[in-house]
Amino acid sequence: MIARMKYCSHCGETVSLKIPPGDNLPRFICEGCGTIHYTNPNIVVGCVPEWENRILLCKRAIEPRSGYWTIPAGFLENRETLEEAAMRETHEEALASVNLGSMLAVVNVAHASQVHIMFRASLTDGKFGAGIETMESALFAEEDIPWPLIAFPSVRYALERYLDDRRNGGTGVHVTAVERIKY
Amino acid sequence: MIARMKYCSHCGETVSLKIPPGDNLPRFICEGCGTIHYTNPNIVVGCVPEWENRILLCKRAIEPRSGYWTIPAGFLENRETLEEAAMRETHEEALASVNLGSMLAVVNVAHASQVHIMFRASLTDGKFGAGIETMESALFAEEDIPWPLIAFPSVRYALERYLDDRRNGGTGVHVTAVERIKY
Repeated sequence: MIARMKYCSHCGETVSLKIPPGDNLPRFICEGCGTIHYTNPNIVVGCVPEWENRILLCKRAIEPRSGYWTIPAGFLENRETLEEAAMRETHEEALASVNLGSMLAVVNVAHASQVHIMFRASLTDGKFGAGIETMESALFAEEDIPWPLIAFPSVRYALERYLDDRRNGGTGVHVTAVERIKY
Repeated sequence: MIARMKYCSHCGETVSLKIPPGDNLPRFICEGCGTIHYTNPNIVVGCVPEWENRILLCKRAIEPRSGYWTIPAGFLENRETLEEAAMRETHEEALASVNLGSMLAVVNVAHASQVHIMFRASLTDGKFGAGIETMESALFAEEDIPWPLIAFPSVRYALERYLDDRRNGGTGVHVTAVERIKY
């Protein structure tokens, strides 16, 4: 997921991978204008939307993990807050409007250079559907959640913590790291 | 802080800002190879290091806010966890080794397209110094913290929450958003 760079996005000259003076990691540096191009991790934001004790999940229509179930989530955009992104992604992927609750989880996904941040949420009116990146969406009671078909370890973690907290009255933020899984 | 792009980093042709099909935000798209170049927010990670009831702060030697005091913090690197970044930045900026504690704060800094994440920490041996981005570093008792000279609103927020929690036994994660400040 880390973009390889061949040409300088400022001047169009070729770049090479070198450690800049005072730095300790290789960066793409322009042979022409000298610009140092940094690439950094991305933030994925989502929520666990609840309606009448059931959880809204979306079956992915895009890779990776097309056909597997996830919570509504996607990349944080520039000039957006985490909360705005969680609500926007739920609109886009599940055609659903949510009241956002507290932050649920912060998950290091270092192998993908990502951090996943999930919130608690409830549907505002029980309406939902399937956006263009979603095959179908559906509400699942806890005992019906399709655990073997959950798309990503971070989503499994968020769902597990959400359900535990619902039983125990927990409202805090859970922090963890997940490893790459061979599918 | 959002990089402007003129040339495609894959093929070197010119790019233009357009909304891709199925998207709703303008992206830099290559006129030659069609690559869509996404730019997304960055994550800044830091910690509040304590030693014998005092807090370690660093006087910044670089812009923005050179000469103002901050906690050790910097950009999360690819393939790094938040915890690894917080410890690395403390080494780099304050030449200090920390035992990292729980997550303290998640701060939306949407105007800069950043999310700041801070941890609680304690120095492992009380040793510290000034890295190349730091003029000097020093331990401050609560009553001596130079509040008017704190570099950023997110740092002020993290310090305030840290000190409140220390008084009240709080160990949770605080979530907020800060606005742009005119200095």
